[in-house]
Amino acid sequence: MIQITLIQIDNYGPWTVTPHPRTESDLQTMQSRLYSDLEREFGILGGLVFFNRFDNLIAVTNGINKKQHERIQDSIRNRYPITISMSVATAETSYEAQKIATKQLQKTGGAQEAKRKEELIIDKLVTPEESLVQIAHIDINHITKTLTDVTSAYDTSVIVYDVIYNLMKELKNVDALSFFIGGDNFMSPSNKVNEETLTNVLKIVDKKTNVTLKAGVGIAKTAQEAADLADIGLEDIRAGLTDKSVLIFDE
Amino acid sequence: MIQITLIQIDNYGPWTVTPHPRTESDLQTMQSRLYSDLEREFGILGGLVFFNRFDNLIAVTNGINKKQHERIQDSIRNRYPITISMSVATAETSYEAQKIATKQLQKTGGAQEAKRKEELIIDKLVTPEESLVQIAHIDINHITKTLTDVTSAYDTSVIVYDVIYNLMKELKNVDALSFFIGGDNFMSPSNKVNEETLTNVLKIVDKKTNVTLKAGVGIAKTAQEAADLADIGLEDIRAGLTDKSVLIFDE
Amino acid sequence: MIQITLIQIDNYGPWTVTPHPRTESDLQTMQSRLYSDLEREFGILGGLVFFNRFDNLIAVTNGINKKQHERIQDSIRNRYPITISMSVATAETSYEAQKIATKQLQKTGGAQEAKRKEELIIDKLVTPEESLVQIAHIDINHITKTLTDVTSAYDTSVIVYDVIYNLMKELKNVDALSFFIGGDNFMSPSNKVNEETLTNVLKIVDKKTNVTLKAGVGIAKTAQEAADLADIGLEDIRAGLTDKSVLIFDE
Amino acid sequence: MIQITLIQIDNYGPWTVTPHPRTESDLQTMQSRLYSDLEREFGILGGLVFFNRFDNLIAVTNGINKKQHERIQDSIRNRYPITISMSVATAETSYEAQKIATKQLQKTGGAQEAKRKEELIIDKLVTPEESLVQIAHIDINHITKTLTDVTSAYDTSVIVYDVIYNLMKELKNVDALSFFIGGDNFMSPSNKVNEETLTNVLKIVDKKTNVTLKAGVGIAKTAQEAADLADIGLEDIRAGLTDKSVLIFDE
Repeated sequence: MIQITLIQIDNYGPWTVTPHPRTESDLQTMQSRLYSDLEREFGILGGLVFFNRFDNLIAVTNGINKKQHERIQDSIRNRYPITISMSVATAETSYEAQKIATKQLQKTGGAQEAKRKEELIIDKLVTPEESLVQIAHIDINHITKTLTDVTSAYDTSVIVYDVIYNLMKELKNVDALSFFIGGDNFMSPSNKVNEETLTNVLKIVDKKTNVTLKAGVGIAKTAQEAADLADIGLEDIRAGLTDKSVLIFDE
Repeated sequence: MIQITLIQIDNYGPWTVTPHPRTESDLQTMQSRLYSDLEREFGILGGLVFFNRFDNLIAVTNGINKKQHERIQDSIRNRYPITISMSVATAETSYEAQKIATKQLQKTGGAQEAKRKEELIIDKLVTPEESLVQIAHIDINHITKTLTDVTSAYDTSVIVYDVIYNLMKELKNVDALSFFIGGDNFMSPSNKVNEETLTNVLKIVDKKTNVTLKAGVGIAKTAQEAADLADIGLEDIRAGLTDKSVLIFDE
Repeated sequence: MIQITLIQIDNYGPWTVTPHPRTESDLQTMQSRLYSDLEREFGILGGLVFFNRFDNLIAVTNGINKKQHERIQDSIRNRYPITISMSVATAETSYEAQKIATKQLQKTGGAQEAKRKEELIIDKLVTPEESLVQIAHIDINHITKTLTDVTSAYDTSVIVYDVIYNLMKELKNVDALSFFIGGDNFMSPSNKVNEETLTNVLKIVDKKTNVTLKAGVGIAKTAQEAADLADIGLEDIRAGLTDKSVLIFDE
Repeated sequence: MIQITLIQIDNYGPWTVTPHPRTESDLQTMQSRLYSDLEREFGILGGLVFFNRFDNLIAVTNGINKKQHERIQDSIRNRYPITISMSVATAETSYEAQKIATKQLQKTGGAQEAKRKEELIIDKLVTPEESLVQIAHIDINHITKTLTDVTSAYDTSVIVYDVIYNLMKELKNVDALSFFIGGDNFMSPSNKVNEETLTNVLKIVDKKTNVTLKAGVGIAKTAQEAADLADIGLEDIRAGLTDKSVLIFDE
């Protein structure tokens, strides 16, 4: 079972233009700092946050309890001009968990309703016994030599964002999520997706986008441990220790 | 003339896995802090930075000189475990400027060569007289009511990333750039793209992605002023002050 | 038993002037960010960090184990140009604990020896049963009306730093520590100091510095809970709920 | 002429306890981040901020104009739960400048009055011609070998804070300011204080506190340049290039 926390800035759109539009560089700073702070606070507890759309962030939070969520929520209120609502759900797959989390948050009110504020809704928390996180760390083969060092920065980005979008779409088809984590790197909370399925998804995206993808996959009790194992898998593929494009390490 | 600065983390890929892969939540924090710091430092000088791919950032820097670029470069070295190289170029269009900037950075060495470090290459700086920045602030109509509040967070994201990718691709066709800035918002440094052309680009993306886009456009001496004007344009469309999907304010 | 962690930047002095002195505003930013990050990471785990001298920080860390200390130490290495060493000790009083912690860190090498790096020495961790933290939150009566709003900012500061120094010195005499936490506020990890003793210490400092001090005191299992109780005590004195200058809340 | 900006958090005390006391680790994070952000924003413009008491900060801002102050003030409002007021004054000495700045801010209302908010009062800005900043960088001789590496961390701190306080008091007597900047380092905006006077002040403090102080002094158009020169002076004394305890570099 994977535990997903959906984090949403309360009534953010209206705030950004009240009383008149706020300077964009300030908003960008605020959003990226919020993300980095959530990353630090969930991270120190073994979780992992993805920026997703910056105003709606998605975190893998196995092992993190209600009190800790409350503490994080309070700490944001005490240091930011905005507040956040959070919704926690568990399921067999990451896609299903975020779906439940979204639904129960929507029930408390709209993302742009002033009265909905600092909700913390918890469907269920995973127990230590059932806790399981599978994370794939995916990247593009030889991007530095084939793109970064030869074509323009923006042209490379267009290709990378094509990959981002296609990974998001294709992984959704197998009930997994996918997030861009910078450079040519992507992470996919992908419980229940086996080696064969993931290999196929990568091939589909390869074909659509003209790149070659590979993935290290980690399976563990927490997001951090799973991501660490995924990194090792990816390193082993890079080092040529396997011919596969997908390498899974199960704790 | 628009002035574009390409910012690249030196030898970043190898660093992230030396001596063994670094914890992902730490890397995410480091990257988003680097972005927020660059945003603050360029921002206070009237510039605007886009995170792009986090290891390759693109900034609009009209009015920011060599010494100021050096000061920012130094301040990163003094506070981060990594260093950055920067390349500055000017052109009639943002796409052309980033292309020149990329080329001259590539000439100094590869993004993953240890010996290439803290380069600062300046092709040319815009003079105050010729300085001109056009920025479009684009968003999706009614996304909160049609998507955020009704479908799952991830499903909304898939749609938004489809829009991101298509805007990036289509705006490139008219020599403009496009960057995701969070939520359902995008910014396009788009010198030389007129109202008709931009309206057509939005229509093409609308058709491909099944959303309806609108854009406020600002034209000014600096990125910040242009973005401020673009925000006002967008607010006026939201308020129903015009039936157009594109509204341009020229300083 | 209180658990104290001494945190020391490794070989910091030499780094600040290599290859030549680094810009002071960058160093100040780096130091205060390091402090804020340590505060966040220890804070989310129930601890509390005091900046002390910025290159030598002192934290109350009851309930925080070895693995968590390691995680924090790693996260600093992954995001800063410097590294930190940490030394953890427990004792009946905070003064004694920091003394043990310092000694065992000194044994590993000097603060400015390049080879001493990222030490983590743990004398002993408090067990949940014996865990006890007493924290006093001390402030100056009516400072806004008597000083901030009437004399110059610097003159007020001279008086406050006189109080800081005298509190540090006098609380040391009763085996407690004292730290400035901004404004006219001080916090004292003060296990074993009873109401009478603390009241006397405040009177001694009052006399020497011509201000009137008061203190809320909290006793609990963790630093955060103790500090929360201390805050309530201080609020009650402010609200006139007691005539005492010291109010203790024992969890 | 030196230009000093007094920065005060608006109505901060009441905010920290509304509706009930906020968690101390959050407040500490917020305060140190605010300081680091002000340092970055003023720093990129050639200024230098001292944390002073964290809720009342003092900056040397020669060369920074009204619009830039406004931009910084706005950026804090857009990213923090609190706002700041600023007051700018110029004078022949730093002490006099901060005194004028304080007075004109006090006239607009008390530091804890809710209605006084985001004031920006400018007495006068220095012209480029008359701009002059003298900064002394003071430190304690051999503190690592005599204190840090041999006595307890807290005992060393008590001695350092004794020095901080005495430097603050004695430098005030010669119309200069003094601020702790971490470790065993202090900075003194000290226009009009000559070598002999500063040497005497250091001797007085040496005698009172049983340490030996030295100072590099820089004189330049901006705070950053003056601090850079001061650093070089201090390095030269450390390197034994002079027998004096004070070395002045005038740009």
